[in-house]
Amino acid sequence: MQRKRLIKLITAATVMLLAAAAFGTPDEGMWTFDNPPLKLLKATYGFTPTQEWLDHVRLASVRFMDGGSGSFVSPDGLVMTNHHVAVGQLQKISTPEQNYVATGFYAATPDQEIKSSDLEVNVLVDMKNVTGRVEQAIAGAKSDQEKLKARDAVIAEIEQESKEKTGLRSNVVSLYSGGEYWLYVYKEYTDVRLVFAPERQAAYYGGDFDNFTYPRYDLDVAFFRVYENGKPVQSEHFFAWNKEGAGEDDLVFVSGNPGSTNRLNTYAQLVYQRDYQYPMTLGLIDSWIGALREYSSKGEEQERRALVRIFGLENAKKAMTGEFGGLQDTSLMNQHKRKEEALRKQIAADPEMQQRYGGAWETIETLLASDTDRINRQFYQGFFGSRLTGLAINIVRYAAEVTKPDAERLDGYHEAELENTRFGLLSPAPIFQDMEEATLTWSLGLSQKGLGDDDAFIKTVLNGKTPEHVAAGLTKETKLYDVNFRKKLIEGGEKAVKACKDPLIVLMRKLDPLLRENIEWNREHMQSAFESAAEKIARARFAIYGKDIYPDATFTLRLSYGTVTGYPMNGTKAPCKTTLYGLYDRAVSFDNEGDFMLPRRFWDRQDRVDLSTPVNFVSSCDIIGGNSGSPVINRKAEVVGLIFDGNIESLPGRFMYDERINRAVAVHTAYISEALRHLYDAGKLADELEGN
Amino acid sequence: MQRKRLIKLITAATVMLLAAAAFGTPDEGMWTFDNPPLKLLKATYGFTPTQEWLDHVRLASVRFMDGGSGSFVSPDGLVMTNHHVAVGQLQKISTPEQNYVATGFYAATPDQEIKSSDLEVNVLVDMKNVTGRVEQAIAGAKSDQEKLKARDAVIAEIEQESKEKTGLRSNVVSLYSGGEYWLYVYKEYTDVRLVFAPERQAAYYGGDFDNFTYPRYDLDVAFFRVYENGKPVQSEHFFAWNKEGAGEDDLVFVSGNPGSTNRLNTYAQLVYQRDYQYPMTLGLIDSWIGALREYSSKGEEQERRALVRIFGLENAKKAMTGEFGGLQDTSLMNQHKRKEEALRKQIAADPEMQQRYGGAWETIETLLASDTDRINRQFYQGFFGSRLTGLAINIVRYAAEVTKPDAERLDGYHEAELENTRFGLLSPAPIFQDMEEATLTWSLGLSQKGLGDDDAFIKTVLNGKTPEHVAAGLTKETKLYDVNFRKKLIEGGEKAVKACKDPLIVLMRKLDPLLRENIEWNREHMQSAFESAAEKIARARFAIYGKDIYPDATFTLRLSYGTVTGYPMNGTKAPCKTTLYGLYDRAVSFDNEGDFMLPRRFWDRQDRVDLSTPVNFVSSCDIIGGNSGSPVINRKAEVVGLIFDGNIESLPGRFMYDERINRAVAVHTAYISEALRHLYDAGKLADELEGN
Repeated sequence: MQRKRLIKLITAATVMLLAAAAFGTPDEGMWTFDNPPLKLLKATYGFTPTQEWLDHVRLASVRFMDGGSGSFVSPDGLVMTNHHVAVGQLQKISTPEQNYVATGFYAATPDQEIKSSDLEVNVLVDMKNVTGRVEQAIAGAKSDQEKLKARDAVIAEIEQESKEKTGLRSNVVSLYSGGEYWLYVYKEYTDVRLVFAPERQAAYYGGDFDNFTYPRYDLDVAFFRVYENGKPVQSEHFFAWNKEGAGEDDLVFVSGNPGSTNRLNTYAQLVYQRDYQYPMTLGLIDSWIGALREYSSKGEEQERRALVRIFGLENAKKAMTGEFGGLQDTSLMNQHKRKEEALRKQIAADPEMQQRYGGAWETIETLLASDTDRINRQFYQGFFGSRLTGLAINIVRYAAEVTKPDAERLDGYHEAELENTRFGLLSPAPIFQDMEEATLTWSLGLSQKGLGDDDAFIKTVLNGKTPEHVAAGLTKETKLYDVNFRKKLIEGGEKAVKACKDPLIVLMRKLDPLLRENIEWNREHMQSAFESAAEKIARARFAIYGKDIYPDATFTLRLSYGTVTGYPMNGTKAPCKTTLYGLYDRAVSFDNEGDFMLPRRFWDRQDRVDLSTPVNFVSSCDIIGGNSGSPVINRKAEVVGLIFDGNIESLPGRFMYDERINRAVAVHTAYISEALRHLYDAGKLADELEGN
Repeated sequence: MQRKRLIKLITAATVMLLAAAAFGTPDEGMWTFDNPPLKLLKATYGFTPTQEWLDHVRLASVRFMDGGSGSFVSPDGLVMTNHHVAVGQLQKISTPEQNYVATGFYAATPDQEIKSSDLEVNVLVDMKNVTGRVEQAIAGAKSDQEKLKARDAVIAEIEQESKEKTGLRSNVVSLYSGGEYWLYVYKEYTDVRLVFAPERQAAYYGGDFDNFTYPRYDLDVAFFRVYENGKPVQSEHFFAWNKEGAGEDDLVFVSGNPGSTNRLNTYAQLVYQRDYQYPMTLGLIDSWIGALREYSSKGEEQERRALVRIFGLENAKKAMTGEFGGLQDTSLMNQHKRKEEALRKQIAADPEMQQRYGGAWETIETLLASDTDRINRQFYQGFFGSRLTGLAINIVRYAAEVTKPDAERLDGYHEAELENTRFGLLSPAPIFQDMEEATLTWSLGLSQKGLGDDDAFIKTVLNGKTPEHVAAGLTKETKLYDVNFRKKLIEGGEKAVKACKDPLIVLMRKLDPLLRENIEWNREHMQSAFESAAEKIARARFAIYGKDIYPDATFTLRLSYGTVTGYPMNGTKAPCKTTLYGLYDRAVSFDNEGDFMLPRRFWDRQDRVDLSTPVNFVSSCDIIGGNSGSPVINRKAEVVGLIFDGNIESLPGRFMYDERINRAVAVHTAYISEALRHLYDAGKLADELEGN
C-alpha cells in the first residue's frame, strides 16, 4: 500500500512536470473530448471521467452559431445560455414600443415563447479523426500552394461525403495548427424559441465598467427552448440542476466552445501582434465606436439600435486591451520565448527532426516581415461593420461559387456550408437604413484615408464622390433590406445577379475581382506558407510532448476543469463568490445611478430574497470568448453555474494561462433559482429546472 | 465682467501650470499651515480659508507622539483617532483575562475611562520661522562638518530658549530639506484616557489582506479624553460633528501629521533606494516577521503579545512593497528624472546659480557610491526590535549626555527633549521576557550572519557564544523590566550607571563607544555632506519655483485637500464610498471566517442598522503614514470622516502623487454615529459628538 501510494505520487508528479514543460499549470487547457487530460485529472483531483460521462456532457452541450455556448437543462429542450448571447435576438424581436432588452421577457406558457428569426444551435454528435486521409491527400503536393489546394479539396470532399451520408452539418476542423484534422458532425436546430431573459440592467449589471472584471453581480442568463417539428425536443442528454450550486474548493468543469486562442503562436508572431496587429485593430475599434456613438446621439430609437453593436465593440476593445497588456508584459513574453527555445533546442538535438521541422520558426519570422505594404493596403480594402455590403458581396459570390466544383469554391460556399450561408443571407432581422448609412460613411472615410484616392478600391467605390454621398445613395437605393428580394436573387442564380440593377449588387460585381485577388494572394503567398510552417511546428511539438497538450481554441467543443477559488487581487484577495448583499452595496455605493442602477423589482422585493445568496463565482477553469453561456458542472455532471466572463487578469489568456490569477466568472445557480422564484415570478421555469 | 472672468481663468490656469511645473496635479501636497496653497484652492475650488479657519483647524488637531494624528471632537476634551493608533494602548491595558483588543472597550461614565500609561498628545500652538537665525549661525562655518555642528548647536539653543520661555515642547523643524527652519511649539498632554474602541475584528475588518486597499469596510476609530489637572480639557477648538458625512464631489481637507515622504530626493537617491535600501529592508522585515510568527505559534498568550508587533511589520512590509513598486515603475522614475533635469537646466542657465547650487546633485550621487562596505556593516551593528536593549543603551547614554553642554549632546538628549526621553524610559508598559528572548535571538543571529565572528560588535556581544545563549542570559538576568530600577539608575546618574552590574547595562557600556563611533562617522562623513547638498537643491528650487511648493513630510502638522471621488480600479471603477451592505457581502463571501468574520453583534443587530449607511470613503487628499487618525473636514471645518489608510495605488506616493488613482481612505462619520448608537450601545458618546 505504502509502495503503491509512493508510485502514484511519483507518477502524478511526473505527469505534472511533463505537462508543465509543455504548458505550465495543472488547471490549464481547453481539451478536446477525444483527448481529455485523464492523467492530470487523476493526479490533481483523483477524478476519472468515464466515457459515458464524457459522451453525456458533450451531448448535453450546445453551440450557438452566432457565437456562444449553452446547454440543455431540462428533458423538454430547455437550453440555458447568457443574456449577452441572447441579446441580439432580444433586440431583433423588440420594437420601439416593446423593448425586451430593457424590460426582460418571460413566456409563462409555451404559446408565449417567441421563435428567433435566425438563431441556430448545434450539438456535436460525432467526431472522427481524419488526419490520415488529409495527409495522404497532400502527400504528393510539390509546393505550399499545392498543399493548401489539395488540403482544401480533400476537406471539402470529406465534409460533403459526411453531409450526404448523415444529413448533418459536417465540418473538418484543423487542430494543433494543422497537427490533426477532425471531422465534427453536428445536429442543427433552427427552431429556437425565447423563454426567459431578465432586463439588461440586471443581466449586464455594472455595464461596460464591470465587464471583464470581478467581483461581479450579473444575472447574465437567458433560456431558450429548442423545437423540432414544432414540438419541444425531448433531450435525452441534459444537465440536472443543482441549486446549491458551486462551493469553495469544488472541482468543476466547463463544457463549451472557446472561440480562439494564440497559445501555439511562435514568439515572432506574438511580437508581430504586439507591434502591428493590436495597435492597428484597437485604433479601428475606437474609430468605429466613435461613429456609432455619434449615430446613437441622434435619438432614443437610434440609441436602442446601436446599443448591441456598441456593447460588442466595447467588449472587444476591453478584451483586446487586456490581451495587448499580455503582449506588452515582458515577463510573459520571455516565458513564451523560453518555452519556444526549449522546444527548438530539443528538435535541434535530433538531426532528423531538425531537418524536418527546424526551419519552420524562421519561415514564419520571414513571412511576417514580407509584403507589409500590400498587407496594410488590404486591411483597408473592405467594408467595416455594414450589414448591407456584407449581404451584397455574399449574394454576388454565392451565385458565382455554386456553379463551380466544390473543391474550387471560396470558403463559406462549399456544399456543406451552403445551408448555413443561405440561413444568414435570408435572416429577416431588421436592417436600419440610417445606421447603415452612418456606418458605411465612417467605413468609407477610413478606407479613403488609409488608401488615398488613387487606390483601385477607392476609385471603384467613391469614384470622386464623398463617403457621405456614396453611403447615402447606396443605403437609400438598395432593396437588400427585403428578404424576398434577396431570396429571388439567390434563387435566380448567376443570371439574376448579373442582370440585377440594385446599386449595391452592381458595386459588388465591380469590386469582386479586386477582393478575390486579395483573397487569392493571401492564400497563395501567406496562408499556405504559414500553415505549412505551423504544421511542422505542431508535429515537432507532438514529437517531443506527445498528446499531453491541447490545441488552440477553434470555436469547437472543449472541456476545461478547475477549482472554485478566489485569487490575489488589487493588494488583497477576491472571494470565490459574491452575494446579493454585494449587489445592493454596489448599487447604493453608486447612488443607484447609470450602469449601477438596480431594476425597480430589486428594491420592491428586497425583503423577499435572501441577501446571502451567492450571485457570481470564480473558478480556475481555462476559458475564453465563445465560452459565454457554457455550463459549469460538477463531478456528477450537475449544473452548478453558468460561465459569462473571465476576470480582467484572464485577458492575456489568449496567449498564456496563469493559474494564480486567471479566473472564469460564472452566475451561481442559487442566484438563478432565487431570482426566477422571488424576483421574476417565474416559479414554473424554476420548477422545470429543478425537476419539480 | 467678461474681462474680469477671463483674467481669473488665465490666472487660475497660470497658477496651475506653475504648480504643475514644480510638482504635478492640483490636489497634490502636504502643506504647512504657514503656507497653505491659497491660489490653487481658489483656482480649483473657489475656496479661500481665512486665517481664523486655519488657526482653528490647527488648534483642533492633535499629534500622537508614538505615531499618528487625531482631533478634538467635543468641547470636553474628546479626541478621535484610529483604532490602529490606539491599539498599542489597548494592548497595554489588556490582561490574559480581559483582552480589550478582542472585545473592544467603552467607558459609559468618566470614572470608567482608563488612563494610558505612556500616551502623549501634542497641539501645535505656535510656529515661527527661524531660518534667518540658523543661517546666520552657520554662515562662518568652513566645512560641511562645521556647518552641521553649528546648526545643531543653534537649533538646540533655539529649542532650549523657547522651552524655558514657554514651558512647552519646542522643536526646530527642518523643512524643504533644509530650505527653511521653523520653531514649532506644542502644548503637551500626557493624561490621556481611553473612552471607546470597537473590537479589532470590526476596526481592522479584512485584516492584513484588506490593509492598504479599497473598497474597505473598517470601523477604525477610537476615542480618548484628554485631561489636565485631573479634569477634562475644555477644548476651545474642536471640530463639530457632521453626521451626514462626506458626499461625492465634496471638497474636503485633512489636517494631520504625515510621517515622511521622499519627493524632494534626487533621482540618484531614488535609484539608491530602489537598488539597495528597499531590497535590504524588505529582507529584514521578512526575517523579523518569521521570528515573531515562530514565537506566536507557542501559545495563545504569545500570539496576543506578538499581535501588535506583527501587525505593524506586516503593515510596513505591504507599504514598502507598494513604495518599492513605485521605484520599479520606469515611467514614474523617468518623470522624476525629467523634473530634476528641467530644474537643473534652469539652474545651469544662470551662471551665478550654477556656481552656487549646480554641483549639489553630483555630490549626492558621489556620496551614495562611497563607503558602501562600512554602511553595510553599520546596518548590522545594532539590535532589531528588542525593547530591553533599547532601554539599556538609552539609560547608559542618558547618564553620560546630561553631564555635557547641551550643544554637544547626542540627538534625543538635548535639554528640550529630556522630558520626553524620560517619559519613554519610564513607561510602565509590560515587557515580556520570552518575546524579548525570541526577538533578541533572532536579531543577534542576523547580525552574526551579516558581520561574521571577527567583527567588533559580534565579539563584544556574543564573545564566542550562540545568539540563543546570550539572548536567554541577558533577558533572564536583567532587571530592566522594573520601572523603579530604571528610575533609580536615571536618578543615580553616571555614577550609578557605571557601578551597575545589570548584564544589559554592562554590555551597553562596552558597546557604546563602537556605536557612538558609527553615529559620529555618519554625522561627519555622510549627514553633513548630504544635508549641505540637499540645502543647496532646496534653495535652487525656491529660486525657480518660489513657495508654490510644499516640503517633504516630517511628522509635523500639514493640511491636504481634495475631492471625495472614486477612481479607475482593476478594470472598472471604485465608488467613492462603501456601505454596510458591502461589509456583510464581504463577510458572507468569505463564509464569515478568519479576517473576514464579523463580530457577533453585527449579526444579532443586523436589522437595527440601515444597510445603506456609508462605511468608508475615498478622497484625493494627499496623505501618508502618520496621517492615521487625521480628521477629514469640510469647508465649514466640520468633521465628515476619519483618515485611516491610503489605497494600494497611493503607496508610490512616498515618491510621487498621482491624482488619477492616489486616494486617502477614511471612515465615514455616518458609520461612526450609526455604530455607536445601534451596535455598541454608546448613545451617550454619540450624543456628545453630535452635540445633543
